Amino acid sequence: MHQAALLGEAIHDAKTYGWELEPDNIHHSWESLKDAVQGHIKSVNWVTRVELRDKKVEYINGQGKFLDPYTITTQTKQGERRLTAKYFLIAVGGRPRYPDIPGALEYGITSDDIFSLSKPPGKTVIVGAGYIGLECAGFLRGLGYEATVLVRSIPLRGFDQQMANLIVAEMEDKGVKFEHRCIPKSVQKTDDGRLHVVWQNDKKEEFSDIFDTVLFAIGRRALTKELDIEKAGVEVAPDNEKIDAPNEQTNVPHIFAVGDVLYKKPELTPVAIHAGRLLARRLFGGSTTPMDYENVATTVFTPLEYGVVGLSEEKAIERYGEDNIEVYHAYYKPTEFFIPQKSIVHCYLKVVALREGDQKVLGMHFIGPQAGEVIQGFAAAMKCNLTVTALMSTVGIHPTIAEEFTRINITKRSGKDPNPASCCS
Amino acid sequence: MHQAALLGEAIHDAKTYGWELEPDNIHHSWESLKDAVQGHIKSVNWVTRVELRDKKVEYINGQGKFLDPYTITTQTKQGERRLTAKYFLIAVGGRPRYPDIPGALEYGITSDDIFSLSKPPGKTVIVGAGYIGLECAGFLRGLGYEATVLVRSIPLRGFDQQMANLIVAEMEDKGVKFEHRCIPKSVQKTDDGRLHVVWQNDKKEEFSDIFDTVLFAIGRRALTKELDIEKAGVEVAPDNEKIDAPNEQTNVPHIFAVGDVLYKKPELTPVAIHAGRLLARRLFGGSTTPMDYENVATTVFTPLEYGVVGLSEEKAIERYGEDNIEVYHAYYKPTEFFIPQKSIVHCYLKVVALREGDQKVLGMHFIGPQAGEVIQGFAAAMKCNLTVTALMSTVGIHPTIAEEFTRINITKRSGKDPNPASCCS
Repeated sequence: MHQAALLGEAIHDAKTYGWELEPDNIHHSWESLKDAVQGHIKSVNWVTRVELRDKKVEYINGQGKFLDPYTITTQTKQGERRLTAKYFLIAVGGRPRYPDIPGALEYGITSDDIFSLSKPPGKTVIVGAGYIGLECAGFLRGLGYEATVLVRSIPLRGFDQQMANLIVAEMEDKGVKFEHRCIPKSVQKTDDGRLHVVWQNDKKEEFSDIFDTVLFAIGRRALTKELDIEKAGVEVAPDNEKIDAPNEQTNVPHIFAVGDVLYKKPELTPVAIHAGRLLARRLFGGSTTPMDYENVATTVFTPLEYGVVGLSEEKAIERYGEDNIEVYHAYYKPTEFFIPQKSIVHCYLKVVALREGDQKVLGMHFIGPQAGEVIQGFAAAMKCNLTVTALMSTVGIHPTIAEEFTRINITKRSGKDPNPASCCS
Repeated sequence: MHQAALLGEAIHDAKTYGWELEPDNIHHSWESLKDAVQGHIKSVNWVTRVELRDKKVEYINGQGKFLDPYTITTQTKQGERRLTAKYFLIAVGGRPRYPDIPGALEYGITSDDIFSLSKPPGKTVIVGAGYIGLECAGFLRGLGYEATVLVRSIPLRGFDQQMANLIVAEMEDKGVKFEHRCIPKSVQKTDDGRLHVVWQNDKKEEFSDIFDTVLFAIGRRALTKELDIEKAGVEVAPDNEKIDAPNEQTNVPHIFAVGDVLYKKPELTPVAIHAGRLLARRLFGGSTTPMDYENVATTVFTPLEYGVVGLSEEKAIERYGEDNIEVYHAYYKPTEFFIPQKSIVHCYLKVVALREGDQKVLGMHFIGPQAGEVIQGFAAAMKCNLTVTALMSTVGIHPTIAEEFTRINITKRSGKDPNPASCCS
């Protein structure tokens, strides 16, 4: 859906590049997109099923529950299945949470539902400003819907806050509304079938508006309880029922866990896959390589994307002290933005490094198009102990956006203007 | 113009994502694009002039000629200017060459002209299959013009030939015609103002066709002769009149050179800029850091782009021996290709590495969208001695294309199928 929104922008760009169309007269069909997305999901599921079968993995469509540390039971269409095993791997992930307010469960939806929503979402309020909330707000606005985000405390908690605020500013420029320091109080159905939402700010002032869709993106809950996990003797964290499993091994030595159920680990698909692969190699392949959860790159797919690997500026300062950190930064102008005259005011990147010697890179942050493609290779470079010296000695590929990282030369400490000197070269 | 062609593809993609338009009824205006491109070029030139003035650099619009090793003269609108200097930097680059055949100069154009062509190019023959020729053929086809490429010997000489052939195959699928092992013999104007082109294959068979535009992309010539360079005593290579200047210093110690005039160095803008910057620092900043011309990344902006850093497979084998090289490779499926059902048959990447130990990476090759963004970070990683072990231990960013490099696991030597096992994850 993010890609659909980007293609909406591309239609506007296309006109400026000579394609004879009238972008403002081109409308979007939610139903076509939803059908395309659902078709894609079905195809992915089908291919996965085929692959499992090819690899002689039995797939049982049923919710598993532990009976004891060595036995799982599940109800399937064909009746109960009981399975015993030498090893167990818990990889049940999580589901979006709902707030405990009137009308939330009855009338609200979550990110899990938006991709199969049969009617256009219309004017939408998104509760929560984590990456899922911002991504949903971003693509809804891009598809032409009014979008309002209720931010409880700060946007993109856990991410570099300078970058998070730039992302929010860019989304505001694109027409997304933000209600800061607000929490929802109630959702009620109106007579004409719309949704009346009441929210409150931190001064206890109340506000309300009418929406067509209320989307909760306030966090996800690990699905450990549903497993009757206590019957297996597996302990969960008291604060969020996640599993603290060093080297993916729970407190019950033959029961392992990977993915979003892990306590204080990045909730990212490739992290789960990578950890699972390494675990399998350790259990069955004689490997001793543990999963490294540090410096995992990720991307927030907001309208202008945010790609990051390593430490935020605030975390680097906390860990090493402000005097020992050097932050290089730059605003830049993507070549593709010139002809369509797209706003470049939030196209920004920074490199957080140690100050001494060759300046080992601790974190890289990038806001702009294709952020995931841009940041991935630098994540590999950080695995190889990238330094600012090495980065500056890397020759750029012109014209790309990624080359901007090789051109950094202004530190925050210098106080110099990080705006681009020239439009290209 | 490449971006304009990509946006034409994006219009087709957009329909499959729910945007209600009829791509086949949307035409392209060459004149609008040409005006937009020229406007951009003028703006870049203007900004550059302003910057020079801000930095108190005098800009003289005139062709310089050496009178002796310490004196340059030039004719300007205001009359002759003579300049003497302690140091000289030659950075005159090159210009496209024309073949010595009847009609070439009279009726042919080059890549320098296509960006300002006042009328639509129409049916075009591109002579030459280097990166400029293929890029031009690619965007012309993408904008809706018939395009035929005459290939003298091999496409993309100097690049990995497996990748080069995949690029050609992809372009053929997109409708570009290739005439292999052919050289042009003559260009004649027809009575109705079109161009009759005759070419010959390596069996001396002759062929001909009528075109609207003949574009020569057979190589570029260094503009050293025009400088009366012999009066400065600077030697040029006998084969191509380029300057062999170790550490950018010519045989005349106070005369330096950077950019495309350098003998056997990559002809790339960022290489020239980087070399110039390092030279300035050595001459005036007390630096001793020389320019490193190895492992310079580059991208060919064909319809599916080709990004590369480091050695081609054939060069690696030549340098280290086939037994000492391991080549990992994979076909892959870009997420964005699913819903529009775009062809993935040429989406391919490979990593050329030493075989021993952690397998130091020697070259990385990528065909697909956004190839420049994908490869840039890995170029930085190679500066930090990237190994296959480090690459495999890097967690991917999902869904991106760049993550495919972190998922490599099939070697050519194994003979295993490099086709993707699943559509995602």
